Amino acid sequence: MSIKVAVVGYGNIGKYAVEAVQAAPDMELVGVVRRDAAGIQPPALADIPVVTDIEQLAEVDVALICTPTRLVPTYAAEILAKGINTVDSYDVHGQLVDVRRELEQVAVKHNSVAVISAGWDPGTDSLIRGIFAMMAPKGITYTNFGPGMSMGHTVAVKAIPGVENALSVTIPAGTGIHRRLVYVQLAPGANFESVKQAIKQDPYFVNDETHVYQVDDVEQLIDTGHGVVIERRGVSGKTANQHFKYEMRINNPALTAQNMTACARASVKQKPGAYTMLEIPIIDYLYGDRDALLRELV
Amino acid sequence: MSIKVAVVGYGNIGKYAVEAVQAAPDMELVGVVRRDAAGIQPPALADIPVVTDIEQLAEVDVALICTPTRLVPTYAAEILAKGINTVDSYDVHGQLVDVRRELEQVAVKHNSVAVISAGWDPGTDSLIRGIFAMMAPKGITYTNFGPGMSMGHTVAVKAIPGVENALSVTIPAGTGIHRRLVYVQLAPGANFESVKQAIKQDPYFVNDETHVYQVDDVEQLIDTGHGVVIERRGVSGKTANQHFKYEMRINNPALTAQNMTACARASVKQKPGAYTMLEIPIIDYLYGDRDALLRELV
Repeated sequence: MSIKVAVVGYGNIGKYAVEAVQAAPDMELVGVVRRDAAGIQPPALADIPVVTDIEQLAEVDVALICTPTRLVPTYAAEILAKGINTVDSYDVHGQLVDVRRELEQVAVKHNSVAVISAGWDPGTDSLIRGIFAMMAPKGITYTNFGPGMSMGHTVAVKAIPGVENALSVTIPAGTGIHRRLVYVQLAPGANFESVKQAIKQDPYFVNDETHVYQVDDVEQLIDTGHGVVIERRGVSGKTANQHFKYEMRINNPALTAQNMTACARASVKQKPGAYTMLEIPIIDYLYGDRDALLRELV
Repeated sequence: MSIKVAVVGYGNIGKYAVEAVQAAPDMELVGVVRRDAAGIQPPALADIPVVTDIEQLAEVDVALICTPTRLVPTYAAEILAKGINTVDSYDVHGQLVDVRRELEQVAVKHNSVAVISAGWDPGTDSLIRGIFAMMAPKGITYTNFGPGMSMGHTVAVKAIPGVENALSVTIPAGTGIHRRLVYVQLAPGANFESVKQAIKQDPYFVNDETHVYQVDDVEQLIDTGHGVVIERRGVSGKTANQHFKYEMRINNPALTAQNMTACARASVKQKPGAYTMLEIPIIDYLYGDRDALLRELV
């Protein structure tokens, strides 16, 4: 029987989430929840129920929460309380343990499952860091992002007064150090120097080397390609000089949506509660017969 | 309370397993099981009980089975039947699903846990292949081994009549194709040409480009360094051109032993049964407080 999935939010990630659910052989896309469900819908949603409230959909097993990250904890708690599993890509690293604990209580009470921080970082990158730590318990892991557009940093710049449109590109400088290139399109009458200073003092940028450029049309620069290199040198048992490296070059929202979709599949196999991706066996994310998967992958 | 671990077999992997257990903060090495327990022991075992039968050790939670791979299913079943968890690095890819099923029955009956094929390939490489398949369900994964000494291939050559000592080196030729370089030291009176033909017709070599060289002293060539590159290009949802790559350069038996030790830790957290590494959450392999691990890794 198909897993019935709803996509909540139809921004950057939501668009790709619709595609990823449609591409999954074991899933049925039962609808999209968005604020502006009354207006004319984009062609991609032509045959899909679009509603303003998840309650308006007949039956939902799992909701992919594709809202801005700061809204995730509230939306997830509301949906979990309806007995519906949730998957999000909540990316505030410092707070996710607390969010996990809050959602755990709601999920256990209402017999549902939350998979949190289920994008690529946090998400699949977290799995890689975990495997690296297993293989060499002593050592240092460096996560190097980019080159590519950072969604979180771009949203942060857009929230600054005087900014009409923005793009924040992350450039890896090695050993986990990053340079930020910020391209801004100003609102009429805005002052570039004050916008530039506001960006450099923003918590998202204050610790990194940040360069701000004024451009006429940000849209002409946007490419959602991104990448990461995760490296660890460390010690296995008592043997030093073990070296591990993971690298990917990807369409950012497409991978986030794909990973969330895999977590939707895993969610229906877990006991009620809240999980990060590290707390779920990898085989649960995959579609297919268990023995066949083991023969192929092990 | 410490996890009480015994190491069964003291060959290449067993030596590093002793070190890895000693280096694990949550484990106690309770003894080593080896055929020649009566003789003079190597300095590394000076303060460690050495016995011929695991029954001679007072209390064991987990046994790391470091015997030759073909002996693993028998040893594992015997030890599981005593209610002791087992971890092995069984590497016969074509048979591991059957071995898992056999050991599952023994483990469930005797309230123990088996973690099978828990080295690096199969093992942590299997986890990487699983994560790659999750991120891009459509696509091709290539596993490229080496350059490095292949334990399995070396053992296969040593079993051929006329071979006194041998070394099989695996050279990656890209896209999952490998070249095998075999160095043999002949027994007195052996004929090189017939040994060479026997190697080339062995199931371990018959499908690969294989070069055989005669040398005077194989020991002078041995380096246990090894490596792997796993690559996948594929489709996330409906988005093509997603590219993933994993690379490691490692001391081979040290990594195998480290991974088995991590699986010993994970084994005490699972319900009775038999597991491959894909069937256990990654966090279970790691030492430390759960919230602290999540803060560090997610």
